[in-house]
Amino acid sequence: MVKHILISDPTLRDGNHAVAHQLSAEQIAIYAKAADEAGVPIVEVGHGNGLGASSMQVGLSLVDDVTMLETARNNLTKSKLGIHVIPGFATIKRDLIRALEIGVDVVRVASHCTEADITQRHLGFVREKGKEAYGVLMMSHMASASTLVEEAQKMELYGAEGIIIMDSAGAYLPADVAEKISALVNGLKVPVGFHAHNNLGMAIANSIAAIESGAKILDGTARGFGAGAGNAQLEVLIAVLERMGYITGIDLYKMLDASDIAEREVMPSIPTIKSESIVSGLSGVFSGFAKHVNRISKEYEVDQRDVYKELGKRRVVGGQEDLIIEVVMDLVRRRK
Amino acid sequence: MVKHILISDPTLRDGNHAVAHQLSAEQIAIYAKAADEAGVPIVEVGHGNGLGASSMQVGLSLVDDVTMLETARNNLTKSKLGIHVIPGFATIKRDLIRALEIGVDVVRVASHCTEADITQRHLGFVREKGKEAYGVLMMSHMASASTLVEEAQKMELYGAEGIIIMDSAGAYLPADVAEKISALVNGLKVPVGFHAHNNLGMAIANSIAAIESGAKILDGTARGFGAGAGNAQLEVLIAVLERMGYITGIDLYKMLDASDIAEREVMPSIPTIKSESIVSGLSGVFSGFAKHVNRISKEYEVDQRDVYKELGKRRVVGGQEDLIIEVVMDLVRRRK
Repeated sequence: MVKHILISDPTLRDGNHAVAHQLSAEQIAIYAKAADEAGVPIVEVGHGNGLGASSMQVGLSLVDDVTMLETARNNLTKSKLGIHVIPGFATIKRDLIRALEIGVDVVRVASHCTEADITQRHLGFVREKGKEAYGVLMMSHMASASTLVEEAQKMELYGAEGIIIMDSAGAYLPADVAEKISALVNGLKVPVGFHAHNNLGMAIANSIAAIESGAKILDGTARGFGAGAGNAQLEVLIAVLERMGYITGIDLYKMLDASDIAEREVMPSIPTIKSESIVSGLSGVFSGFAKHVNRISKEYEVDQRDVYKELGKRRVVGGQEDLIIEVVMDLVRRRK
Repeated sequence: MVKHILISDPTLRDGNHAVAHQLSAEQIAIYAKAADEAGVPIVEVGHGNGLGASSMQVGLSLVDDVTMLETARNNLTKSKLGIHVIPGFATIKRDLIRALEIGVDVVRVASHCTEADITQRHLGFVREKGKEAYGVLMMSHMASASTLVEEAQKMELYGAEGIIIMDSAGAYLPADVAEKISALVNGLKVPVGFHAHNNLGMAIANSIAAIESGAKILDGTARGFGAGAGNAQLEVLIAVLERMGYITGIDLYKMLDASDIAEREVMPSIPTIKSESIVSGLSGVFSGFAKHVNRISKEYEVDQRDVYKELGKRRVVGGQEDLIIEVVMDLVRRRK
């Protein structure tokens, strides 16, 4: 029995969270080329929050979407070019049409885990244009397995050719992943995927739990470069999958080379699990908040851990970064 | 059902591998105090290879054993003071008597996984002196489960009050750990423990697999500070164990503080999983070799990955650091 796993690599998209969306065109070119040479099937590129997300609220990217995508396109020969698309940030007219013209192959249309409805038009448009369309449910720890199945079934109906759930907060332990993925595999006709974050040190183990529960798609990034504590470290994931007898089509040694290049040329520092990442994982707060919480907490001299706990209680999701300052102000007031 | 786990923290011993044994007395004092305040049950201190190991061959420590132990002793109030003892490095007469006089509470007598015989006299001596004695089987991935049980039973016979197996090369996946630990739990009367390394990103998952297979003792270090890719990150481990309903007696927030202090005061950098760590994990080579392999490979311009592969084939173990240069020379010769 051959066990194929489809790998998607968002180093140049989720990694953008780790540098406040300041990846340069040159960095995109260098890593895209290296990943392509290693045989990575899908290279995902863009602002941390995806197409059209560059803004004052969630952060301006150094390079505009068109330049990012053209640069990646010019450096990919075998790898497909992927994008992360959150309707609300990305409009069909302004953003998606242009992206497909540039040569994007794979579009992952994402919503909060209970809001699949908003992905209908975008998924339909991508299928209509003959490109690959996937549905992504973010912050999936906030919904029960049965809710996730319902939401995923909507995306399937809208035309998604696969459904990926994200552990955006790094809140899962392997048993949680197994429960959610098994339910989705049973409830869907299309393949299921998993996108990990490493807040509780479980990114690799959770990815393996997903596969053992029937997932066929995994996300991973070079050195785990990504929001907060980072993602599943791709070169580690490839090594472990290979040892377990799974096939990814990626050359391990060339992937190690690509990760060395990424470490040297793309990332100011390798993600590690800081104390605040642990607390944010336990609190179930989106990993992309880490940089902002860190900065604002320091500025107002409040304990980051209290900020995460409070954000967790308020069940914040990506895009609500303005709530951080509100929570910090509340803590400052209470202190007085 | 209350599920107690005994935590031993070798940040100031395994971490010494990460800095070529150059931890200062001040650093030892600072972290010992912080770990003590967090309620860490056992704080292990010393040269990376344990008591009496400071030498030209495996590395001279900055601070001598007596100073390291006295410093730690003076900063521990509730935590027990532990040491790692490899007979051959540590003699009873020269090293162990003095260590017990200083006030060491817990002695872990370690051997290669197939050489438990060498621990008999040391284990017997520690028990005779009324101190806690544990047996440690290093590089345990190199022996079958049944061999490990036989070797562990010898240590039990010699007086060991618990047996810890080390994944010194970071070579295990969770299923491997479950197999080995289950066999030991079934074959021994004394508690079983596990010491992880993170080469394959599985240090936390492997530690949890050990506990779920019946282990009662776990090792972990602040920020994973330790040889190669580092150990199980203690503050993450505590968070995960707590969430799973296990009790360690350690205060999570104070442990997070201790890990912040360790990051700032003790370690030049947080361990991450570099490409060579992945290859050394896959090759089953002791994590303590990483610094040396890195340095010598660079000096002679050979691919570290080839060095690890060759060292793996030769089944090298800790203490055989001089073989690195031999392997590198072979590779240089073959290149010509």
